[in-house]
Amino acid sequence: MSPRWKWKGAEAKALAEPISKTVSILQSSLTRTEASGLLSNHNVLLSVEAEQAELLDRSCFGRPVVACAEKEDKRWIQLTFEEAFFLFYNLNCIKISLHGRRLENEVELWRFVRSIKPNFATSYKAYSHLRLKNWIVRPGLQYGVDFVVYRHHPSLVHSEFAVLVKSVDGNDRLRVWSDSHCSVRLTGSVAKTLLVLYINGEEVNREDMNLPLCLEDYTVEEVTVRRWSPELNREHDLSL
Amino acid sequence: MSPRWKWKGAEAKALAEPISKTVSILQSSLTRTEASGLLSNHNVLLSVEAEQAELLDRSCFGRPVVACAEKEDKRWIQLTFEEAFFLFYNLNCIKISLHGRRLENEVELWRFVRSIKPNFATSYKAYSHLRLKNWIVRPGLQYGVDFVVYRHHPSLVHSEFAVLVKSVDGNDRLRVWSDSHCSVRLTGSVAKTLLVLYINGEEVNREDMNLPLCLEDYTVEEVTVRRWSPELNREHDLSL
Repeated sequence: MSPRWKWKGAEAKALAEPISKTVSILQSSLTRTEASGLLSNHNVLLSVEAEQAELLDRSCFGRPVVACAEKEDKRWIQLTFEEAFFLFYNLNCIKISLHGRRLENEVELWRFVRSIKPNFATSYKAYSHLRLKNWIVRPGLQYGVDFVVYRHHPSLVHSEFAVLVKSVDGNDRLRVWSDSHCSVRLTGSVAKTLLVLYINGEEVNREDMNLPLCLEDYTVEEVTVRRWSPELNREHDLSL
Repeated sequence: MSPRWKWKGAEAKALAEPISKTVSILQSSLTRTEASGLLSNHNVLLSVEAEQAELLDRSCFGRPVVACAEKEDKRWIQLTFEEAFFLFYNLNCIKISLHGRRLENEVELWRFVRSIKPNFATSYKAYSHLRLKNWIVRPGLQYGVDFVVYRHHPSLVHSEFAVLVKSVDGNDRLRVWSDSHCSVRLTGSVAKTLLVLYINGEEVNREDMNLPLCLEDYTVEEVTVRRWSPELNREHDLSL
């Protein structure tokens, strides 16, 4: 399935402004101002300048918080744990505080987030795997999946893949045929392809799991799942 | 959601020919001719007269097998295990043979089917529960559910409910939010309501499970699941 651009000229605009470049500018900017986020039980609230808020929007990190009172030149952005950890650990461009104290390193953040979200290791591995390939990754709740991914900003293009993350120890989805049918049918009906990311790794002991280093040991296997229609495949060149 | 009749006058036709009446005529007819089915590892092939084939179609049991050579006055109907067991055990109007030998009672059939389909007890409880209320019950594979149910014949009305069967020991579906979201979104997009049937029963030991009598001990809890939209519920009469 080829990408479905939202309007004429959207593809050209996307090509002219690659996501990787926007992320790179964002990274420099956040590093320069030592942007800092507040960690809560649900998300991370990041305080940034107006220009940085725009860069975050263009590279699709977080959502602006519009309800709270704000100084004219400051914006609050609400980041998911995955987004915050990516900016903190992979891009190393934000600081994070918990209860007014700045976290010293990634291990502290990792431990806190994993205590709230036990499957964070595999979820983050999947998120960062896709982000590092410059896909835009958004929550997939409305389609009953873990993430949806876009080739470029959602204002330019529809999301192409609905992503389910599976691991050895967390086999909650696609255990039975009816679930696979349900997922394939739904993603098909919204013109997406179901992408299953299998996160493989050594059986990790509790001590290792306290360190984000375990991410290095994980491998990601990518499988797309589609409905096969015999009629569509008849009398076609088999070499295609 | 009210039933979606397929054409003008379909509702009147349905009211004039209640399913219960058709099933009753079918039951008498099959009993009279001692209709007999052949049990295989996948289904039951029932040999019937042309007029009975029409009654089976009108009451939605099985599918006609059109490929095999047939005598002019005989028709072959392929029944699912649930359909065959309902006609054999609940309506007591067909005989069933395995490898050329007629099965003596329901215990033999029950044991055979359960050896092929381990979750048959709960699946059959759900099927018969709905059938006994005169719903038409069809396989729900294409919507990623166990069954779909119709108010009357599918030629008259669209199916209203997509049914998932859950039991204490078979918790394969709806274990996580993403699966629930997926199921609700999909059933909503095809104008159905998700109906979850929880089959409750004493922890059944293996000996009891060999007898269809355990069906009597099961209770069925019916829950419909829908998406809640805050906008739709604003400023409405709360008593509705």
